[in-house]
Amino acid sequence: MVKIGIDIMGGDYAPTEVIKGAQEFLKDNSNVHLFLIGRENEINSELQKNSLPKDSFTVINASQVIEMHEHPTKALKEKTDSSIAVGFGLLAAGKTDAFISAGNTGAMMVGSLFSIKTIEGVMRPTIGAYLPRENGSLGLLLDVGLNADCKADNLNQFAILGSLYAEHILKVPNPKVGLINIGEEEGKGNLLYQGAFPLLKNNPHLNFIGNIEGRDILLDKADVCICDGFTGNVILKLAESVFDIVQRRKIKDEHFDRFNFEEYGGVPVLGVAKPVIVGHGISHFLAFKNMLNIARKMIETDFTGKMQQAFSHIKS
Amino acid sequence: MVKIGIDIMGGDYAPTEVIKGAQEFLKDNSNVHLFLIGRENEINSELQKNSLPKDSFTVINASQVIEMHEHPTKALKEKTDSSIAVGFGLLAAGKTDAFISAGNTGAMMVGSLFSIKTIEGVMRPTIGAYLPRENGSLGLLLDVGLNADCKADNLNQFAILGSLYAEHILKVPNPKVGLINIGEEEGKGNLLYQGAFPLLKNNPHLNFIGNIEGRDILLDKADVCICDGFTGNVILKLAESVFDIVQRRKIKDEHFDRFNFEEYGGVPVLGVAKPVIVGHGISHFLAFKNMLNIARKMIETDFTGKMQQAFSHIKS
Repeated sequence: MVKIGIDIMGGDYAPTEVIKGAQEFLKDNSNVHLFLIGRENEINSELQKNSLPKDSFTVINASQVIEMHEHPTKALKEKTDSSIAVGFGLLAAGKTDAFISAGNTGAMMVGSLFSIKTIEGVMRPTIGAYLPRENGSLGLLLDVGLNADCKADNLNQFAILGSLYAEHILKVPNPKVGLINIGEEEGKGNLLYQGAFPLLKNNPHLNFIGNIEGRDILLDKADVCICDGFTGNVILKLAESVFDIVQRRKIKDEHFDRFNFEEYGGVPVLGVAKPVIVGHGISHFLAFKNMLNIARKMIETDFTGKMQQAFSHIKS
Repeated sequence: MVKIGIDIMGGDYAPTEVIKGAQEFLKDNSNVHLFLIGRENEINSELQKNSLPKDSFTVINASQVIEMHEHPTKALKEKTDSSIAVGFGLLAAGKTDAFISAGNTGAMMVGSLFSIKTIEGVMRPTIGAYLPRENGSLGLLLDVGLNADCKADNLNQFAILGSLYAEHILKVPNPKVGLINIGEEEGKGNLLYQGAFPLLKNNPHLNFIGNIEGRDILLDKADVCICDGFTGNVILKLAESVFDIVQRRKIKDEHFDRFNFEEYGGVPVLGVAKPVIVGHGISHFLAFKNMLNIARKMIETDFTGKMQQAFSHIKS
């Protein structure tokens, strides 16, 4: 039985949309038990409106909520009965197999890094985002902001983690990994990227296709696009703004509709020893359903084991 | 009399579109003398098709062409009778007041840095790009690739140069300068941007509005968006690819039509002591006309003098 913890209080449309997402998810998924974490009375009142199958869930009362604007480390430390703190507690204790929240992103990061161990050999965990491509598939961009300052070794590790995720969770066979750069030839870029290129090129665990440029990111040239967290965050927010402009201009287009990043829910924190998924603040029920699906896939494919195996191999 | 040198051999649609651009420009501009630099026979044959007003131009024969794929430094050194080398020679000698080319970008950069002096006090010249905004105006993004590795001081200087350009050439009064970053608050970002923020904030020559994020770049939050050349190049090429996708999907929209970056021609190399404008390889006549207009404005407003004044003030 797969056990997933979900923060019912996290996100702009919590708790209603979280419960609706759980309801939709459970329609297609038996053999999963959800731990609904948050204020018991609010959860129960939502369950009156959107009921979940009996025995498919457990309500875990957490009396506090970490608000979006709060300082992550401080809030996690002080609000020990917050839904995020309680969620990480259950995960760390092995009572759940995964934890999902669309709440305070910083608190989710701090929790991932300090409540859950980093996989041995991983220097820095990373977080990515999906990239909609015209052929209907999704690419992966990482890092998108967890690591603003990177070393070449970090980019190489992000490539391994992203490649594993694309292969096992997005089901892309032999995913193509591209290094974001300002020119195609080896030797292009700033010192960081000049240093990273040979590491990725000589990494036997990657299907490295070389440098890709800004113009390639939204195409399907690479399945996994690697960059430092500063660059990736700017790229992601720029791509999100394209969706806003398209909406504002009332352009109807199937492809640009997929630039609605909130629908994807979230990408897990890669490199930590248990599945943790951080959702977008403006997540609606579909996003929560998607995050639950990703968590289930990560548990069922033993994605943590896959990461551990990859990094144990690298060390030897 | 304003004297502008233009490389007739540079760009994918040279020489035809260059001459057409010159023709269109001269319709609205008297009191300008153009120096058409390239293979004399090719220029003369083009002039039979698209004639220019008598006495408005001089043909300068240059027997060689630096091709797009050639190594910039090597080509400039070896092809001393190339249109780019001859163009820089005329500019350096004071026979022209500005030089324009849509040819080999690298050779144009090398020429700007070595044939033309850097303005005293400027550590690194920079090159920018226009950003179309929904209100119909243009913003400025810089650096877009000349400086892949930057120090905080470089970003501060780019801000001064970009701000002057926005004020005097784009005619934006008191232009708003934003530092591209991954969060709005001071202290956000990587070490480079954390270091740059206080420099821009305490710079009395700037109307600094603080950090801007990826989502703000295509809006009119800032008139001048500052970043290192790695980040800027990725942003520019990503924005260019949005236009390609919009075209491919046959979306007709007035705003996205303005993402056709080739129409803007080019932005000058800022920080060098004479006006040099580097065009996009795929420039059509409108781009050449626009570049000629920018060159004329830079000469007439004594833009070089404005930059010299700003940097002399900074040193004192």
